[in-house]
Amino acid sequence: MVQPQSWEQRAEEFSMYGFTDLPSVHERGTVVVTHGEGPYIVDTNDKRYLDANSGLWNMVAGFDHAGLADAAKAQYDRFPGYHAFFGRMSDQTVMLSEKLVEVSPFERGKVFYTNSGSEANDTMVKMLWFLWGAEGQPQRRKILTRKNAYHGVTAVSASMTGKPYNEVFGLPMDGFIHLTCPHYWREGRDGESEEEFTARLAQELEDVIAREGADTIAGFFAEPVMGAGGVIPPSKGYFQAVQKVLKKHNIPLISDEVICGFGRTGNTWGCQTYDFMPDAIISSKNLTAGYFPMGAVILGPELSDRLSAAAEAIEEFPHGFTASGHPVGCAIALKAIDVVMNEGLAENVKSLAPRMEAGLRGIMERSKNIGELRGVGYMWALEACLDPATKTPFDSKLSVSERIANTCTDMGLICRPLGQSIVLCPPFILTEEQMDEMFTKLEAALNKVFAEVA
Amino acid sequence: MVQPQSWEQRAEEFSMYGFTDLPSVHERGTVVVTHGEGPYIVDTNDKRYLDANSGLWNMVAGFDHAGLADAAKAQYDRFPGYHAFFGRMSDQTVMLSEKLVEVSPFERGKVFYTNSGSEANDTMVKMLWFLWGAEGQPQRRKILTRKNAYHGVTAVSASMTGKPYNEVFGLPMDGFIHLTCPHYWREGRDGESEEEFTARLAQELEDVIAREGADTIAGFFAEPVMGAGGVIPPSKGYFQAVQKVLKKHNIPLISDEVICGFGRTGNTWGCQTYDFMPDAIISSKNLTAGYFPMGAVILGPELSDRLSAAAEAIEEFPHGFTASGHPVGCAIALKAIDVVMNEGLAENVKSLAPRMEAGLRGIMERSKNIGELRGVGYMWALEACLDPATKTPFDSKLSVSERIANTCTDMGLICRPLGQSIVLCPPFILTEEQMDEMFTKLEAALNKVFAEVA
Repeated sequence: MVQPQSWEQRAEEFSMYGFTDLPSVHERGTVVVTHGEGPYIVDTNDKRYLDANSGLWNMVAGFDHAGLADAAKAQYDRFPGYHAFFGRMSDQTVMLSEKLVEVSPFERGKVFYTNSGSEANDTMVKMLWFLWGAEGQPQRRKILTRKNAYHGVTAVSASMTGKPYNEVFGLPMDGFIHLTCPHYWREGRDGESEEEFTARLAQELEDVIAREGADTIAGFFAEPVMGAGGVIPPSKGYFQAVQKVLKKHNIPLISDEVICGFGRTGNTWGCQTYDFMPDAIISSKNLTAGYFPMGAVILGPELSDRLSAAAEAIEEFPHGFTASGHPVGCAIALKAIDVVMNEGLAENVKSLAPRMEAGLRGIMERSKNIGELRGVGYMWALEACLDPATKTPFDSKLSVSERIANTCTDMGLICRPLGQSIVLCPPFILTEEQMDEMFTKLEAALNKVFAEVA
Repeated sequence: MVQPQSWEQRAEEFSMYGFTDLPSVHERGTVVVTHGEGPYIVDTNDKRYLDANSGLWNMVAGFDHAGLADAAKAQYDRFPGYHAFFGRMSDQTVMLSEKLVEVSPFERGKVFYTNSGSEANDTMVKMLWFLWGAEGQPQRRKILTRKNAYHGVTAVSASMTGKPYNEVFGLPMDGFIHLTCPHYWREGRDGESEEEFTARLAQELEDVIAREGADTIAGFFAEPVMGAGGVIPPSKGYFQAVQKVLKKHNIPLISDEVICGFGRTGNTWGCQTYDFMPDAIISSKNLTAGYFPMGAVILGPELSDRLSAAAEAIEEFPHGFTASGHPVGCAIALKAIDVVMNEGLAENVKSLAPRMEAGLRGIMERSKNIGELRGVGYMWALEACLDPATKTPFDSKLSVSERIANTCTDMGLICRPLGQSIVLCPPFILTEEQMDEMFTKLEAALNKVFAEVA
């Protein structure tokens, strides 16, 4: 009789894995997850993990939120699917657009739906190309982003992403320009103050615009805090300095709030935490608390007006995804926004962020191999370092952050290795007790791995 | 006291409409849909429409399928969200990958998930670029598709799409080459037989490959029947002739089955209906019967092996979407595949397709302004024509197909204008009685509009 395959064997046989360290999978097996409880997930071997990664930043209300499940279930009974083409859309879609403009920093605006942050960034690029073409400047096609930025994985949003791994696809495409990452600790020069660093980056932007020609640039995209770059808050005054340059050259500033949006930084939007007003917002992830694939472009007043005029002139904006504005996704998003903003989740982040920072700072101070603690709200990174005094990294062959993450996983804590840093971005429901569990397991894993490699 | 806004006003105030005729919306108002019953949808004014468009080809089990809603609801209670990165994924994801390979035409294969058909095509292009680069042919980047093809709306999948409207975005990008549409009725030359037409298109492919250089071409993508191009089945022997050329030059053939897959043509896959074996399949839409945003790349044996080897060599395939393999989407897809294949839906398409063809042929024969009836299974188009004998179209200023579609909408029937054709792609649950309602309303609308314009 043929033996049934294990979950791990079935996963390997049929999966083309993405963003997965393949040697680790072959050695350790796939973790096949069956269910969750609050911020914990449970696998097919009944092993339980505190997911300090919130899934992928997105499961901010945990893995079994009854109110969100009820919203989804009610909408499946009411109207389980429709599109937003041809002047038709569901009532949930209309209600969500109204709500998104209401909670945005904009006094008015318009919403376009996608199924992911990748699609939302890709859509925003197409919107800018469409807009400048309609306004008689079709040569304005270049997109400015930053090194270490993450904006997605479609060929265009991957081109926006400032990560070396995209070279294997022959990306970025021409016309996607990556400026210096505003990470003062790593990128600041000897003797350079943080203010001088910020001024240097603003000057770099000015120089790049001069070199390329302002009239060749379509827009500038930035995450308020870089997420998959390794949790990198901007240097002091960065967005004010950059926006001043962009405004001078009439270049739109798009805030990619896929990670920061809806509470991660302690405010509804990251642009509020860093006090700047973008021309449009890209939203996804927390928008549905991970309960449904959805992205949204929220256009501020000026871009709404200009894009509407461009579309009216040709009677149609020829773009849209089949599931854009899906009624179930919209019903879930309406509930998720309410849960995050009005049921104590955003408040929890705000009130416990200092406790999280203090706990991680204690771990850093007790370790000889943490170079930097950085973050805000419920997104933090500890940077592993062979010698913090000289900021010397570990030999990359040691895969130090992967070893820390795997050791944490063995202990029942999920965190994310990014470069040589360990990222902690727990669900917003994380309690003080769960936070202490995270600290304890993380410190034990750091001590174990540093004892092996340092 | 401020009067509450109407649904129509709220929709216009907050929506950036996509694929929508803006003058029609301003004149007629947005149709805001609240719920559905079988193949019918109902709007906020309690008006009921037979949706012969299946939403957007995808709601093949109708708008209130209890089994699908139950599958979704059960999974929301069990595990409402996770990703497939870092060697972790849900049990539902593993089960769906196994099922997709089982029902595919491939003897074995691997699956990669996305949130849409656009993302799946974009992903397949990145996979091909990655593959050829890893195999020492990084210059193999050009993508071949056909005029009138529809492959999506990301910047890359829009570049693959052979529609003139993408010019407003400055697309297609360089390196996306559109061959002749295999529409014999429109593209065949005077006196050219269908076999000669097919041979000419195969020769065109051979010539293009010779001109561009086979070693610059990454892959060839084709829908078995073009969908949004206006329901265009291939000319006789087309795929056999084309595949022979592609094989000679070692160019992968990708079957975009976003519309055709899971029953639309009367078989599980369109490539089965037209008897060819692709190297990979792109799936979406029917995959979840429209109940969840999901796309999938299903790699056949050779591409699975080559891509796996390329990924193992660098220890990671650096690509993936946050909601790739979402457990709720996978649970729904498992149920949708079962519903379509085993609960009589595919069977209904197969058995009633001849009745649908006969009904539409009757309408064509009773009209003086239908030039062609074309289609297969439950996807058909009637081509409006000023003079069918000479294939002379109506003056485009008359917007004849939009007028027909709007007249149908007024009568409670939704169908889709594409070029000068009217597309009918009803849900697979459509009964004989509902089919007759479709025929009656469609013919009345055709007669009314042709009386005005012809």
